[in-house]
Amino acid sequence: MKLWLGDRLTEEADARISPLDRGFTLGDGLFETMRLSGGAVLRLDAHLARLAAGAQVLGLPLPGLDLAGALAATAQANGLSEGVLRLTLTRGTGPRGVLPPAAPSPTLVITAAPAGPALPPARLVIAQTTRRNELSPLAQVKSLNYLDGILARQEAARRGADDAVLLNTRERVAETTIANLFAVIDGALVTPPLADGVLPGVMRAAVMAEGAQERPLAAFDLQRADELFLTSALGIRSVGEIEGRPVSAFAAAERLRARIPGA
Amino acid sequence: MKLWLGDRLTEEADARISPLDRGFTLGDGLFETMRLSGGAVLRLDAHLARLAAGAQVLGLPLPGLDLAGALAATAQANGLSEGVLRLTLTRGTGPRGVLPPAAPSPTLVITAAPAGPALPPARLVIAQTTRRNELSPLAQVKSLNYLDGILARQEAARRGADDAVLLNTRERVAETTIANLFAVIDGALVTPPLADGVLPGVMRAAVMAEGAQERPLAAFDLQRADELFLTSALGIRSVGEIEGRPVSAFAAAERLRARIPGA
Repeated sequence: MKLWLGDRLTEEADARISPLDRGFTLGDGLFETMRLSGGAVLRLDAHLARLAAGAQVLGLPLPGLDLAGALAATAQANGLSEGVLRLTLTRGTGPRGVLPPAAPSPTLVITAAPAGPALPPARLVIAQTTRRNELSPLAQVKSLNYLDGILARQEAARRGADDAVLLNTRERVAETTIANLFAVIDGALVTPPLADGVLPGVMRAAVMAEGAQERPLAAFDLQRADELFLTSALGIRSVGEIEGRPVSAFAAAERLRARIPGA
Repeated sequence: MKLWLGDRLTEEADARISPLDRGFTLGDGLFETMRLSGGAVLRLDAHLARLAAGAQVLGLPLPGLDLAGALAATAQANGLSEGVLRLTLTRGTGPRGVLPPAAPSPTLVITAAPAGPALPPARLVIAQTTRRNELSPLAQVKSLNYLDGILARQEAARRGADDAVLLNTRERVAETTIANLFAVIDGALVTPPLADGVLPGVMRAAVMAEGAQERPLAAFDLQRADELFLTSALGIRSVGEIEGRPVSAFAAAERLRARIPGA
């Protein structure tokens, strides 16, 4: 596999991250996962806008190179026109301590992978292990601090599920470990508001534009929903089961898949 | 600088972390910061016990080598008998996705640095930017997910302070970005309980053993405290100012420094 590191393509085996990189020592950075379709990144502008917004929260300068060109070159070097691209941006190396250096040299990495197989409807549980912190500005940032999601995903695996819904500190539904969550309740298509600790997903925005409404949701609302589905940059995945309850309505997700490219 | 990587010492310039290391891509790992004094790691057993407890939370296997020997070798290779050692343990590389590999190959890094200069009493602010999530088991783990601390430390710098106190999601005092916090209030030496989102600091435990009591604290309690001080593995630092209010009592910290090695 070839990847992009800094300002050029390199073989994965030759790519070296410093053990002093703050991405490695402190999770001090951001990432984006993007879908590659027909050789192009879907909704690239929205991904780059979210990256820029996250960089602003962290006080991290964006690299002074053509990110779109670097993404395209990475896909091409791996012979991929369909697949997944991941862009990682960290604050680079720094001296010991939490305070970032005044003039950081960010580290940029782009990797490419083929698309995975199509997935059946997801089995979900509601995470008991941990909660999403909606009071941190990081709830709206796709940051490298992924351990709460990892703990919840491990819990899902232990409980025989594919993914876990994270509640926030006030017991409201936020999202799953890798996706935003939509529900059809009393005939309305709803999703939790960003203020409940929700990452502003690029596919979430595309679904919102089709007429979904933001509404705070409790775990109870998921239990009584007629339909549930997950959205991420990689597509829309229906939910077939939540906390052991089968869910068998898939019409809203199917309608959106027909309307939204890459969904 | 020489550092320990995996199972051996290497020059920093030759040390390569893979861009696919989950420590780099997801903050999936732990660390310990330890004080080196007279060629030995102070309270090594307590640090290794905390590392093991954190590894248990993450489901991360500990490396099968003599960590005490690796720490000593790293200090010696850098000609240090006084200073700071940092041990980082990540889940190593893995395929794309949040779920950890079933049989991870953890990455171990140990770095050594000279001790910094003695510091004057700290100026503290109470962070407005973010909150500590006491509802996550990660609050008790010294994990690589340090961005909330970084945001609060940046806020402290903007506000002319040395460090910031983090409140938890219920507005109780937790700790600062790099230290536990103690207060003398109405003649009693108190510190927030672990359940309020407090990392179980090794120096905190040493101070507790001298007779401090756990008590939930509000920001208001810090404003009326007679004395405040910070504890970390590197020592006890008095507080000279909180939110602009001067604090001029240092007796409790001085008494503890005389009783606790390395404080």
